[in-house]
Amino acid sequence: MTQEQLTQAIHDKSSFLCIGLDVDLDKIPVHLLEQEDPIFAFNKAIIDATHHLAVAYKPNTAFYESYGTKGWQALEKTIDYLNVNHPEIFTIADAKRGDIGNTSTRYAKAFFDHMGFNALTIAPYMGRDSVEPFLAFEDKFVILLALTSNPGAFDFQVSDTEQNLFEQVLQTAQTYTNHERLMFVVGATKTEYLSRVRAIASESFLLVPGVGAQGGSLDEVCAHALNDQVGLLINSSRGIIYASRGEDFAQAAAAEAQKLQEQMKAILAKRWG
Amino acid sequence: MTQEQLTQAIHDKSSFLCIGLDVDLDKIPVHLLEQEDPIFAFNKAIIDATHHLAVAYKPNTAFYESYGTKGWQALEKTIDYLNVNHPEIFTIADAKRGDIGNTSTRYAKAFFDHMGFNALTIAPYMGRDSVEPFLAFEDKFVILLALTSNPGAFDFQVSDTEQNLFEQVLQTAQTYTNHERLMFVVGATKTEYLSRVRAIASESFLLVPGVGAQGGSLDEVCAHALNDQVGLLINSSRGIIYASRGEDFAQAAAAEAQKLQEQMKAILAKRWG
Repeated sequence: MTQEQLTQAIHDKSSFLCIGLDVDLDKIPVHLLEQEDPIFAFNKAIIDATHHLAVAYKPNTAFYESYGTKGWQALEKTIDYLNVNHPEIFTIADAKRGDIGNTSTRYAKAFFDHMGFNALTIAPYMGRDSVEPFLAFEDKFVILLALTSNPGAFDFQVSDTEQNLFEQVLQTAQTYTNHERLMFVVGATKTEYLSRVRAIASESFLLVPGVGAQGGSLDEVCAHALNDQVGLLINSSRGIIYASRGEDFAQAAAAEAQKLQEQMKAILAKRWG
Repeated sequence: MTQEQLTQAIHDKSSFLCIGLDVDLDKIPVHLLEQEDPIFAFNKAIIDATHHLAVAYKPNTAFYESYGTKGWQALEKTIDYLNVNHPEIFTIADAKRGDIGNTSTRYAKAFFDHMGFNALTIAPYMGRDSVEPFLAFEDKFVILLALTSNPGAFDFQVSDTEQNLFEQVLQTAQTYTNHERLMFVVGATKTEYLSRVRAIASESFLLVPGVGAQGGSLDEVCAHALNDQVGLLINSSRGIIYASRGEDFAQAAAAEAQKLQEQMKAILAKRWG
């Protein structure tokens, strides 16, 4: 998928919502546990109920890996289901990978070729040759961690020096080959920095976690970071997928997704009429 | 395993060699491809031929993930084989993970509980709450990326400011809860920085990639970075496991491992007599 197609999908659905599929067997409805593959059954129901409200889904690989081979199979089935039934959906493997060149190529093959994700989150610590192997894949995207939504972001990403590490990452990434296929993770809990992000990465899409459960404000994020291509994917995970543990879990998820989508529709209408 | 047990194993075997199990189906002997699980067959043969020469094995998860569920199964079989047959071996999942707190706990469960690795490599970018969940597991170790062996290390880890990012990582990590279960990745290709690493992390084990194929020198690393607990694990992957593509691949791997082990034995004898 290209960036233009993603922007088009956002306008078509009046939504820039990304739904995080962080499936925890301790939190899903008990009646699903009897199914052969409860993780996939849960994801399928959530996707069926919300796909008209979201432009992207983002499984976090940690949740799948913690269930071993079975979890990995559920992840493969989930991405297959999305690719076959909803090819217009932008799919993100939230894997936070990154390694030396030949190893990054392996990860790229795993997530782009083997599973067919559109994008992968990457940690920037190892620099250029840990990122560029992913950017070599046509119409695939790297979403580089810039400023994360957790408290530990202040350990290294933000400092009292002239240039914060997250700004250095944004700046250096502009020099990477195929950098137009780079997006960045910027937490909604740090809106005071969003203008500084946009000063460096004006054209890039930002994946923004932290709206809802973690306390970030959608309006504030949009005020600072919308660009001409919309340029935002707002992620919500727990607030949507765990809205109910009853038989009605999928409808409850859809209701929560719709609340966000309606706010997004209003924001888009204000700017694009 | 505790750090003391690891040091004891090093003295028992006169070796601080770690063998990287980066299995690539395009590089393993062709006759193995007929087996039901060629990746595990390869690992088993390598382990059987080299376990008396090495104190640690380090599968890089990227290589397994690139083969999907089958790769993941081969990884599980490999770690099971090591845990059952060679419980004295220190096992490292080279996964370079790291995410917000509840997600890091998932990764810790996947690699420490579910698979039973002794240690996991972690990228430090997201800070304290992305690392501490791993350190909560007793007798398990986090190996934090400090100064990596690839060219991209100079993008962010090393700078012209007063304190390099890798030094800031080493310093900050000393304040993490259970920091005595932290080790650090420091590339053998950057020996000029090893004394600066030891000035901050004098007690910690260092996992050192880059000896051999990437050009680092074992003697130089040891001159700068041996400590009273030995404190070094020297990793070699391709130089050992792909020493031959013939029927003799396991013996050829053992011969390469032995060359390194003999150098290590001499270095240990010089200091500990």
